[in-house]
This record gives sequence, structure tokens and C-alpha cells, in this order.
Amino acid sequence: MVIALLTDFGDFYPGVMKGVIRKITEEEIVDITHSVRAQNVFEGAFLLYNSYKFFPKGSIFVAVVDPGVGGKRRALAVKTKNYWFVAPDNGIAYPSASEDGIEKIISLNSRKLSEFSGELSSTFHGRDVFAPAAALIAEGKIDEYGEEVETMKELELFQVKIGEKIACKVAYVDRFGNIVTNLKKEIVEDLKPKGFYINETKIPFVKKYEDVNVGEPLALIGSFNTLEISVREGNAAEFFGIEDEIELGWF
Amino acid sequence: MVIALLTDFGDFYPGVMKGVIRKITEEEIVDITHSVRAQNVFEGAFLLYNSYKFFPKGSIFVAVVDPGVGGKRRALAVKTKNYWFVAPDNGIAYPSASEDGIEKIISLNSRKLSEFSGELSSTFHGRDVFAPAAALIAEGKIDEYGEEVETMKELELFQVKIGEKIACKVAYVDRFGNIVTNLKKEIVEDLKPKGFYINETKIPFVKKYEDVNVGEPLALIGSFNTLEISVREGNAAEFFGIEDEIELGWF
Amino acid sequence: MVIALLTDFGDFYPGVMKGVIRKITEEEIVDITHSVRAQNVFEGAFLLYNSYKFFPKGSIFVAVVDPGVGGKRRALAVKTKNYWFVAPDNGIAYPSASEDGIEKIISLNSRKLSEFSGELSSTFHGRDVFAPAAALIAEGKIDEYGEEVETMKELELFQVKIGEKIACKVAYVDRFGNIVTNLKKEIVEDLKPKGFYINETKIPFVKKYEDVNVGEPLALIGSFNTLEISVREGNAAEFFGIEDEIELGWF
Repeated sequence: MVIALLTDFGDFYPGVMKGVIRKITEEEIVDITHSVRAQNVFEGAFLLYNSYKFFPKGSIFVAVVDPGVGGKRRALAVKTKNYWFVAPDNGIAYPSASEDGIEKIISLNSRKLSEFSGELSSTFHGRDVFAPAAALIAEGKIDEYGEEVETMKELELFQVKIGEKIACKVAYVDRFGNIVTNLKKEIVEDLKPKGFYINETKIPFVKKYEDVNVGEPLALIGSFNTLEISVREGNAAEFFGIEDEIELGWF
Repeated sequence: MVIALLTDFGDFYPGVMKGVIRKITEEEIVDITHSVRAQNVFEGAFLLYNSYKFFPKGSIFVAVVDPGVGGKRRALAVKTKNYWFVAPDNGIAYPSASEDGIEKIISLNSRKLSEFSGELSSTFHGRDVFAPAAALIAEGKIDEYGEEVETMKELELFQVKIGEKIACKVAYVDRFGNIVTNLKKEIVEDLKPKGFYINETKIPFVKKYEDVNVGEPLALIGSFNTLEISVREGNAAEFFGIEDEIELGWF
Repeated sequence: MVIALLTDFGDFYPGVMKGVIRKITEEEIVDITHSVRAQNVFEGAFLLYNSYKFFPKGSIFVAVVDPGVGGKRRALAVKTKNYWFVAPDNGIAYPSASEDGIEKIISLNSRKLSEFSGELSSTFHGRDVFAPAAALIAEGKIDEYGEEVETMKELELFQVKIGEKIACKVAYVDRFGNIVTNLKKEIVEDLKPKGFYINETKIPFVKKYEDVNVGEPLALIGSFNTLEISVREGNAAEFFGIEDEIELGWF
């Protein structure tokens, strides 16, 4: 069994979460990422959706991008067909959980869970609520720390608008500056494009990086099975600038 | 048993330390952080103090922020009531070790410890001294690699000056730009403040982020149990600028 | 047994690789670094060369800096006297593998390996090819996923030109801004230098950081056993600027 962490916490805070987990369980802890853009629930949901399915059945995911921490949003543990998801109720776990098949949603008792860290801060529920919840799932004891509810907040990852241009989202920008959009492979294939435009820049639609020269822009279906804009051995995010939304022409 | 690492090494060097540890012991290795501001012993001490207590008893901490590496400062292994700390003798482990209760201080034999990495560099005692020391503690063999001493360098985390203004330290700036000070909760509570000032900017003292509007500054007691200056869904460090010291007015 | 990862992937992608590995094997996964400069095969090779030997015998290294991903370059698993290396055939694993002693080179069947991730993307062979290959080595099954070949691409780490000046490479810049060159200790010792020049700046050649004042530049033999340029408690990369190549005078 694996407890996998995905947050926007950067360094340090995840280390404290690991300490709290180790007080409860010896199950393995794996980092997926702690570099989600700060407070960006959409990006967190997108990255979780594109990683959970590569983990073995039985894995427990802790996904915390949580601008509402300390407020009224619920904290959830969601059992699905093959996995568990622990997350604030802001939609971050919804695309993954609903794809895998939701079987049970538990609204967590934050006060009771915080007995393991010894305090219930208003800023760090990763430590005080979510880490112990994941560890208690691993130990088969989570039912004592919450009550079943019927619904969780929904979030839609792949909404795009197709008119004269395609309005889609920048779902993720990786370390290479590749711009990963939320425009699904199937939609792209229907368009049968030769290429795309960003403003006036023509971007050929290709199969792999080597299909263009070094330094040239390209578009391809990337490892997320969505459209990616890249520059071969370069940085597309610097080349085009990064925004949350992107408008693509095509030809 | 857990061997937990806290350094300012960034990437790569901690990976090498893990290799050396694995040559000696199979005990689990956990990263707390490797992003302490370079050479900032105070920040290292503050983060260690705010993480060690969340780990299970028996954990071994390796805390290396070490501007004096290669020079005359001693390398220490410190046994406390519940933990072990391995660190250069520059104060980084003192607040944690003294809080938990120091039972034994061993001045390490760096030359002898370096047999595991095969060399004693003048720049990377994380690899040559501290990593093997931690692993040997895990294996119950550290006594052969040093001699007991009576004292270690002290360091005070929570010194502040309260006059017309409060002069305190920026102990840590997290990835969200939250400015974590070393002004303790108890002192803040005695002041019964409605809010604080940085220069002319008024900052309400609240319970949680949602008590102000998005984009507005706020002050609260954070997860370190000290005063934190934040901007809701924004970046206080960018908003106010970051210095090592901070002067706060209050009302 | 340890599976150790070294890539230029930054955050997230390595987390997905760990999921894929966990579907196949329970052997421990250790991160060496994921911050190699993007697409910089030389730096990847240098860091692998300076870390593999600190790991226990039997360790499996996954080294992926892969500008040719999706193209025709082969994917390799290389058995050496004491280790395994999994990498694209671009030279990244060559200095390490050849030093340890190459015993067998397997050209991997990427299509067959991708059954574990469920797809063969043209951008992320870390997930689809290299991660499952490492896990299958751990399980003793790699022979079914490739065929033996005779050669692999070579790469030379320590080539320098010594004329009036020394032309060498910036092999790595660490988080402190230390400039690690590929100029070997033995060559430096033959020169018997008192110091070096970068442009007009005189840099004393010393034993340890404390041999100069805080804020002053220095040169020493660092933990890579090559020449390093540093600034005591400062940042040499900012002080001198970073390039891929560096010209050193000496006196």
C-alpha cells in the first residue's frame, strides 16, 4: 500500500506531514508533487487525474490545494473502486474519484483527527487533518473519524469552447516550459489539424519533438493525452508567455 | 525508526547522502526540507524545532546548514530523551535538543566516519560525516565514532525586542509567501492586538484567511504558533518585501 | 536493493514514474536529483558519475535526460560489475557504466515495456519505458524486454584544453552558487597553482572556505574531486555569471 502526496506546499510542510503519518502507520509514503501553482485547485485536480491511475490498486492519495483552509469547507476521505482520496472538498479529487467510481464519501472530523498532531491550526490541515486521515485509512480506522455524506463538490477538467478559435486552459506548465492544455486528444483528432496559431505564430502539429528543428515551436499530443505546445529543446512558456487561459487558432 | 534530513543543500547532495546511508543501514529516510535559505542556521534551527516533535520517538534527525564546513567547528551527535540529532555544532540542533532534553553529546570523529564515503572532503560533510553518523546511530554503533563532550553551541529562537515597535525575525518564508515570524503566540496574546502595522500598512489580526477579502493582508497565529503575516490567496513576501528582520507596530 | 532516479524532470513526472514502479516491484525508490539543467545530458552524466559509487552494490540507476525522446535513440539497460543503469542511449550513463565495468547492454523494447503504463507516449518515456525497465530489473525479468547489443554511445566528462588558459566546462552549479568544473584534481595538482583568474578577478586556491573572508571568491578541490569556484557564504554563479564553458587563467 502507498500513501501518495500531491500538494502546493513546496518544501518543509510535506516533511512534517510525513512525521505525523509515521506516528500512525508504517505504510510507504511517495511524493507525487508539492509544486502545484499556489492555490490552483484546477492544476492540482489535473495532475492528480493524470497520476492516480499509474499507481497500484489500494493506493491512498492525499491531495491538498486548499485556499479555504481554516474556513467552512469540509475535509473528505473518498473511497473509490480501487483507491482512496483524502482532500478538501473543493473539487480537487473529484475528476479522479468520479472516474474510478465513488463508493463512499466521509466528511472528516477535523477536531478529532488533530489529536495526532496535537493541535488544530487554522492554516495547516495537511498536518492536522489530512495526514492523519490518510494514515488512519491505511490502518483501517478512518470510519471512527468522520461520517458518511452523499455528495462532494464537482470540478470539470476538460471544458473548452470551440468557436472561431479554441478557448482552453493551461492545465500545467512543466519544468521544460511545455504548455499542457486541457484540450483532449479526441477533440484534436476530430479537427484533423495541420497546425495551430497562438496570435500570429504558426505551430505545426506533429508526432514528436524531432519533427521540427531545435528552437522551433510545435504542438503534439503529450503524455497527458491532451494538446501540448512546446519548443524543441526550448521553453514554450517563455516563448509564448504563460496565462491561465489560452486561445488557439488552427488550420 | 526514521532518519529525517533537513538541510540547505537543494537537490542532488541529499541523494548522495542517501546512498551513503544505504551502505550502512536499511532504516527509512525521510526528507523534511532541503530548501533552508543557504547558510541560514537560524532558519534551519527554526524549521527543525517545528518539525521534530511531529515525528515518532526514536527518530534520528540530520540537520545540516553548515557555513563552517571544513573548518574547526565540531560535528555532533546528540541523544535526547526521545530522539537523536546529528548536526554541525553551530546551534542548529540546540533549540530542539534542549527542549526534548539533552542526555548525551558526542563529538564525532570526522576522519573515522569518512571511511564510508571513502574520502573526507572539505565541502561536503553531509556525505562524509553526517550521513554515516546517522546511519551508525540507527545501527547502534555511534559510540565507536566519537567521544562524549559536555556542551554544545546554544542558539535562541524566540528573542524579540518590544519597545514602541516589535523587532522580530523573519524565521521562514514559505512557498505561498507567508512571512513566519519568531514572535510567539503567548506574547501576541498578551498584547491583545486588533492588528499590526508594517510601515504604514494596517494589517488586521484575525483567526483565519477567510476573515479578510482575497488579496488583502492579514496577521494570524500560524501553524508554528508564532505570528504570521499573509495576504489572502496572495504573496505577503512579495507584498511587503522580505528582510531578515521585521519591525511591527500594533494597535 | 535501491532504485535511484536522476532526471531533469523537476516535480510531478518522477511521482508518476514511482507509481509505475510500484505496480511492478516493492524495492525502495530513492531520488538523487530531478533538477539537472533541462536537456543537459553532460550535467546528468556528471552528477550520475559522482553519485552512483556512493550507493550499495546492486543498486539500479534510472538516468533520464532525454532530448531525443520519441525519436530514434535507443533505450538501454546496462549491467555493470556492481550496478544496473537504465537510460536513453545518449551517453548519460556511459562514464559511470564504463568506470564500473560494462558486462551487458540491453536495447529495450519500448513498445513491450509500455504495457505497464498502458501507453507509449512520444514525450514521457520515463513513465512508459525507463520506470518499468528498472522495476523489471529488480524483479529479475528484464531479459524478456529487450535484446543484447554490443555498444552504447560514449561521452567524455573530463576533457579540458590547457593552453595559455584552461578551457573547461561548468559541470554543475549547486544551490549555493558554487561553480563545479570538470577540471580534475590531478591536473590541478600538477599545475601547483597559487590561484586562478576569471577575466581580471584573482581567485586564491585554498583548502577550505574559511581560508578567505566572508564574501570573497576562492577556488578549491570540492567534493566532486574537481576544481570548484566559490564565494565564501556567497554565490559564485551570481558573482561571475554562469556559462557552459569557463576560461581560467592561473598563477
